[in-house]
Amino acid sequence: MTAWLEQQAAVRERRGLVRTPVTRIGEDSAVDLASNDYLGLATDPRLAEAAREAIGRWGTGATSSRLVAGTTALHLELESELAGLTGMESALVFSSGYLANLGVITALGGPGTLIVADEHCHASLIDGFRLSRSRVETVPHNDLGATEHHLRTRAEPRALVVVESIYSVFGDAAPLPQLLALAEEHDATLIVDEAHSLGVAGHAAFEGHGSVAGTDLSGHPNVVLTATLSKSLGSQGGAVLGSFLLREHLLNRARSFIFDTGLAPASAAAALAAAGIIRAEPWRAAAVHRNAASLTAGLAPALHAPTLQRRGPAVGPAGASLETAGAVQSIPMSSAAAALAASQAAHVAGVRVGCFRPPSVPDGVSRLRLTARATLTPDDIDYACATLRRILEETP
Amino acid sequence: MTAWLEQQAAVRERRGLVRTPVTRIGEDSAVDLASNDYLGLATDPRLAEAAREAIGRWGTGATSSRLVAGTTALHLELESELAGLTGMESALVFSSGYLANLGVITALGGPGTLIVADEHCHASLIDGFRLSRSRVETVPHNDLGATEHHLRTRAEPRALVVVESIYSVFGDAAPLPQLLALAEEHDATLIVDEAHSLGVAGHAAFEGHGSVAGTDLSGHPNVVLTATLSKSLGSQGGAVLGSFLLREHLLNRARSFIFDTGLAPASAAAALAAAGIIRAEPWRAAAVHRNAASLTAGLAPALHAPTLQRRGPAVGPAGASLETAGAVQSIPMSSAAAALAASQAAHVAGVRVGCFRPPSVPDGVSRLRLTARATLTPDDIDYACATLRRILEETP
Repeated sequence: MTAWLEQQAAVRERRGLVRTPVTRIGEDSAVDLASNDYLGLATDPRLAEAAREAIGRWGTGATSSRLVAGTTALHLELESELAGLTGMESALVFSSGYLANLGVITALGGPGTLIVADEHCHASLIDGFRLSRSRVETVPHNDLGATEHHLRTRAEPRALVVVESIYSVFGDAAPLPQLLALAEEHDATLIVDEAHSLGVAGHAAFEGHGSVAGTDLSGHPNVVLTATLSKSLGSQGGAVLGSFLLREHLLNRARSFIFDTGLAPASAAAALAAAGIIRAEPWRAAAVHRNAASLTAGLAPALHAPTLQRRGPAVGPAGASLETAGAVQSIPMSSAAAALAASQAAHVAGVRVGCFRPPSVPDGVSRLRLTARATLTPDDIDYACATLRRILEETP
Repeated sequence: MTAWLEQQAAVRERRGLVRTPVTRIGEDSAVDLASNDYLGLATDPRLAEAAREAIGRWGTGATSSRLVAGTTALHLELESELAGLTGMESALVFSSGYLANLGVITALGGPGTLIVADEHCHASLIDGFRLSRSRVETVPHNDLGATEHHLRTRAEPRALVVVESIYSVFGDAAPLPQLLALAEEHDATLIVDEAHSLGVAGHAAFEGHGSVAGTDLSGHPNVVLTATLSKSLGSQGGAVLGSFLLREHLLNRARSFIFDTGLAPASAAAALAAAGIIRAEPWRAAAVHRNAASLTAGLAPALHAPTLQRRGPAVGPAGASLETAGAVQSIPMSSAAAALAASQAAHVAGVRVGCFRPPSVPDGVSRLRLTARATLTPDDIDYACATLRRILEETP
C-alpha cells in the first residue's frame, strides 16, 4: 500500500491539491470569514453553560446506540425543539449531519425509488444515493424542467427530489415552492437539506428558522428536512425532520442511526440552547444578511478588476456577483494554486477565508468561500474587504 | 410516501421487530449491562472536567470541517495520544466511529482494490464497502482459508482484509497474528476495527491498549486500525490509525472527513482524558475480564436449563457458552419476541441488557447482549445473574 499512497500523494502535489489544515492554537484576533458558526453561538456562554450542565447530569458520552441505552430525556427535548423551530411534526437527531443525510436517503431509497438530485448536492447526500441502491438522476443546478421530466417519466412507484435550501459552496437558494408543486403533482417526496439555511434564512416572523418554516412546505406530508447542529447551532450533530411515521421508520431502518453511538449530551444541550436563542434573537439572522450585503459592497471593486475578468465567466448564480441567499459568498479563482495562495495571504494578514478546491467544488472551479457571520463588526468587515481587495488585485 | 411508510410499519409489527428506545430520564439504580461504557469513564469526573475546560477554551463546536477552521491544537493532541496508546505512527480523528470506518474504506478502496471482509463486520464497514466500489468478497466468520483463497486468486493490484479485533455482537476475537501473516504474504492491508477492544483488551504491559498494541501488528506497514471514542473512551467520535502517509491520504481523500464538521472540542477533550486514564489505571481493563468471568459463571445454570436447549444450536464462537474475548457476552434467544420480552422483563427488574434483533445480528438469531463493565460491583453482578437466570428459565 505504501507505494500506492506515495504515488497518490505525488499526483496531489503536482495538481496543487494538497490540503493542509490550519490548526487553531487558541484565541486570536483573526477575522473569521471561514467557519460556519454563522450566528456566533459556538462561543456563546449560554451554550457553554448548557453543555457543562449536561455533562454533569448525563456524562461525557451517550454510552451506546440511541436504541440501546443512548437516548436521554435531553435528546427527546432537543428533537421536540427542532421540530417546533422548523414547523415539522417530529425530529430524529443523529450524531452528525453527514450521518443524518446518509440515514434518511438510505431508509427512504431503494430499488423502488427514483432519486432526482440537484448536481450541487452535498457529498453526504451523494454518498446516501450510492448506498441506497436507488436509480439516481442528477439534474442541472436548479433545473425544474429536468426534475419534472424525470418524475413524470419514471417507472418507480416512489420518488425523492433532493435539494439544499441554500447551497454550501455557491450560497444560492433552491426554488422551493416550485419544487413542492412538482413533488405534489408527481407523488414524490421533497427532501430539503437546511444545513446552511437553519439559523440564517427565514420568512417574516420566522427569521432564522430556516427556509421552510412558515411556508407551505412546513409540515407538508411530501416534505422531509435535514439539518445540521454544527453550523448556526454552534454544536455537533444532525437531524431529520418530518412526520412521526417517518421518525419511526428511520429509527427502525436508518443504519447510520441504529449502528452509531448517540450524540454526546454536551452537544445535544448546546444545540438545544442554540435553538432557543435563534427564536429569541432574530437580530442574529438579520445581522448575517446585513453583513453579507456589506461584504458584497466592499468587495465589488476587486471583483470587477481586469485581473478577475480573465478568470472566465463566473459559474453559478452566486458567481462573481456575490449574490447570496444566506451567509455564504463565493469568489471563483483562476486555479487551485491561485485560490490557495490567496487564502494563505489572507490568513497571514489576519483574515480567515475558506479555500475550496476540487473535489469540494461542484463545478470544478476553485474559489474562496466567505461566510458573513452575525458577530462580525463593521471594523472586521472593513478590514477584511480592504485585505481581500488587495489580495484579489494581486492574484493572477 | 405515507402509505408506503404505513405498510413498512405494519410489516415490522407483524415480525416483532419494532424498536422502541428506552429513554433515560436521569440517574437511576439500574444495573447497566447494556451500554458500551466498558470502563465506566462516561461519568468519570476527570473526563467531565476536561470537557468543561475545552468548552471554555474552544467553544461548543468545531465550527467547520477540520480542513477549513475545525482543527484545534486539542484535536492534534488527541490524535497524538491515540497513536501512542495503540503504538501506531499517527491518527486522524473523525466525528464518529461510523464516519471513520466509511472514510478509511472509501479512501483505500476502489476498482483496483479487492476487499476481503469477515461476515460479522459492522454496518459502518459494510456501508464503506458499498461506497468504495471495490469488489467485495465476504468470507465466513474467522475463516482464514477463505481469506487466503481470495487474496491469492485476486486480479486486483491491492487488497484490504477487514476484520474487528473483538466482534460487537458475539464478543469473540479475530485471529490477528494469522491474518497479519496472510496480509504480508499476499501484499494486502489488514484493517482492524478496535471499537470493542480498545480500553478492554491488551497484551502484558499494554492492558487496555487494545488487541494490537504490543504485538507484531502495532506500527506494521500492512496494518491500519480504526477505533471509536464513544465506548471505552466515554465520549463521541472515531479515529483511523496508521502511517503518516495514510493520515495525509485520508485528510485529502476521505469524504466523511473532508465534508463533515470536526469533532466537538468537549468530546475531543473527554476522549483525551480517557486515554490517559486507560494508561494509568490498567485495573479497569482487568475488572472487565473479572466481571465477564463472574457473569459467565453466574449465568451458566440458566444456559443449561432445558428451555434453553430448545433454542437450537448456539451460533458463533461466543454462542451460549458465553465465552468472550472482551466485555461483550451474547445469549441467543428462540425468537425476536422472546428476546424483546426477556430484555423488557430485565428492565422492569432493574437490569439493563441489550436486545439485538434482525437486522442487528449477523446470523439472524435474536439475542440478549451483556457488557461486563469495569465498574459493576459484585452485588450488581449477583443481582443481575439472579434476575437473568429467573427470566431465562421462564422465557420460552
